[in-house]
Amino acid sequence: MKYVSYVKAGKPGFGAVVNDNKVVDLTDKIAGVGSLAELVGSEKSLAEAKAYVANQTPEFGLDAVTLEPVIPQPSKIICIGINYVAHAAEAGRKVGDYPVVFHRFADTLQAANAPLIRPTASHDFDFEAELAVVIGKGGANIKPEDAMSHVAGYTCFNDGSLRDWQFHTHQYGMGKNFRKTGGLGPWMVTADEVDDYRKMEIKGVLNGEVMQEGKLSELAFDIPYLISYVSKALDWNPGDILATGTPSGVGFKRKPPVFLKPGDTFEVVISQVGTLSNTVADEA
Amino acid sequence: MKYVSYVKAGKPGFGAVVNDNKVVDLTDKIAGVGSLAELVGSEKSLAEAKAYVANQTPEFGLDAVTLEPVIPQPSKIICIGINYVAHAAEAGRKVGDYPVVFHRFADTLQAANAPLIRPTASHDFDFEAELAVVIGKGGANIKPEDAMSHVAGYTCFNDGSLRDWQFHTHQYGMGKNFRKTGGLGPWMVTADEVDDYRKMEIKGVLNGEVMQEGKLSELAFDIPYLISYVSKALDWNPGDILATGTPSGVGFKRKPPVFLKPGDTFEVVISQVGTLSNTVADEA
Repeated sequence: MKYVSYVKAGKPGFGAVVNDNKVVDLTDKIAGVGSLAELVGSEKSLAEAKAYVANQTPEFGLDAVTLEPVIPQPSKIICIGINYVAHAAEAGRKVGDYPVVFHRFADTLQAANAPLIRPTASHDFDFEAELAVVIGKGGANIKPEDAMSHVAGYTCFNDGSLRDWQFHTHQYGMGKNFRKTGGLGPWMVTADEVDDYRKMEIKGVLNGEVMQEGKLSELAFDIPYLISYVSKALDWNPGDILATGTPSGVGFKRKPPVFLKPGDTFEVVISQVGTLSNTVADEA
Repeated sequence: MKYVSYVKAGKPGFGAVVNDNKVVDLTDKIAGVGSLAELVGSEKSLAEAKAYVANQTPEFGLDAVTLEPVIPQPSKIICIGINYVAHAAEAGRKVGDYPVVFHRFADTLQAANAPLIRPTASHDFDFEAELAVVIGKGGANIKPEDAMSHVAGYTCFNDGSLRDWQFHTHQYGMGKNFRKTGGLGPWMVTADEVDDYRKMEIKGVLNGEVMQEGKLSELAFDIPYLISYVSKALDWNPGDILATGTPSGVGFKRKPPVFLKPGDTFEVVISQVGTLSNTVADEA
């Protein structure tokens, strides 16, 4: 199943995407569930939603809604850096004993098909194609062998980064936290539809040209490890986002560097998941 | 005026602290204002609250409520590292051209008088006494000369840090983001009661012994600069927290190192603001 969050006629809603990008609206249809984050937090509600969708005729197309970034306002967005060996090499880093963790705030996200915003403060606006995990069941101190049961599904992420700000100091700081710079979407594909995430292939495509390519089997720290590691510090909550890192080919290490500019289109393409597409626009 | 957020008889509320630690409850008393974050976002509502409090007899004492971390669930907690020259020196760093910025999630906060939690995953639990700013009026791209009009008030912060995790990699990562490790409180003192924040003095006191001491006039990057810098990346929202950094004297650089352990009491004492006191307990 594919799930989306959206605004339709000014009201927040969520639903399932079925054949030909038609939507079965689930807003106020599942008892006690007011959002996609609440839906993914309950296996019972997910089963109920699946049964409901199977018996419905979709009411409208995906183009009739304004998408939200999959989960509107997730309580946490945890990002992993330097998690593909080839990207570590291009960034002048080595994969170490622990994952490189940083954080983004919810207002840095942008939905599929909406423009990523190049800020006034910096034009060193780089792309990073990533697989993002949407957490389902919450928990603390999760063991790696139990971690995959906390995965509700997968979506595409563009970890848009302002490179000069990212390296203002030894901490990434605000460089990964500019408003509406991180694309997330278009939908969440539920974990039960994914055979093995390590078989996924990921591409970052700028104006039709493949810039980044990788396989999820290459992750230095795999998804069970990452879920477990973070859960020793903080509880995972339903709808939280874990971004798994980007493969090599980012813009700022190219010669000459390549940065996103107004009019560009950047796509994150992940097999078994889908394509996230965003244009770029300047901050108003 | 001093404001607090709390839970009383199982219900969230907020109010003003007046003489002898008595509380005037403001829950549902100011039109359109459901929380302290909403109150501080509106100068009109703050004026209304002040007038209301002046005409009330307080109904209960501060000891009749369970305090929340001043603002429950702030949308952002932005922390500044290496912002006192002497602390930079002890940490083996220099103050550079830009502030060192990192982030905490809301569930890392703990209220005054509640125990800070030493996690199972690490016992290298260090203290950092800091002045925290509570943002009032929100905004983006704020000029330094306008920044102080966005300060609702001040509170005390203990930026509790798990030092081994903080240095797992070159990014602080989860070391600053363990659950219930960061004390915030006890109250917010409104900006109009503070003559000049640079006249404040700050102390970190462990079991009665002064471990850290500093003056807010020593900040390498001052509050107007910090508010402005962050606002170029993200909008400030009412109730957001800006932690201004810690003076020298933290535990992990002492010989031998000093770490927080169950039974300890750590106090952050700031002139013109008050005292934040927390005990320490092990994760259950």
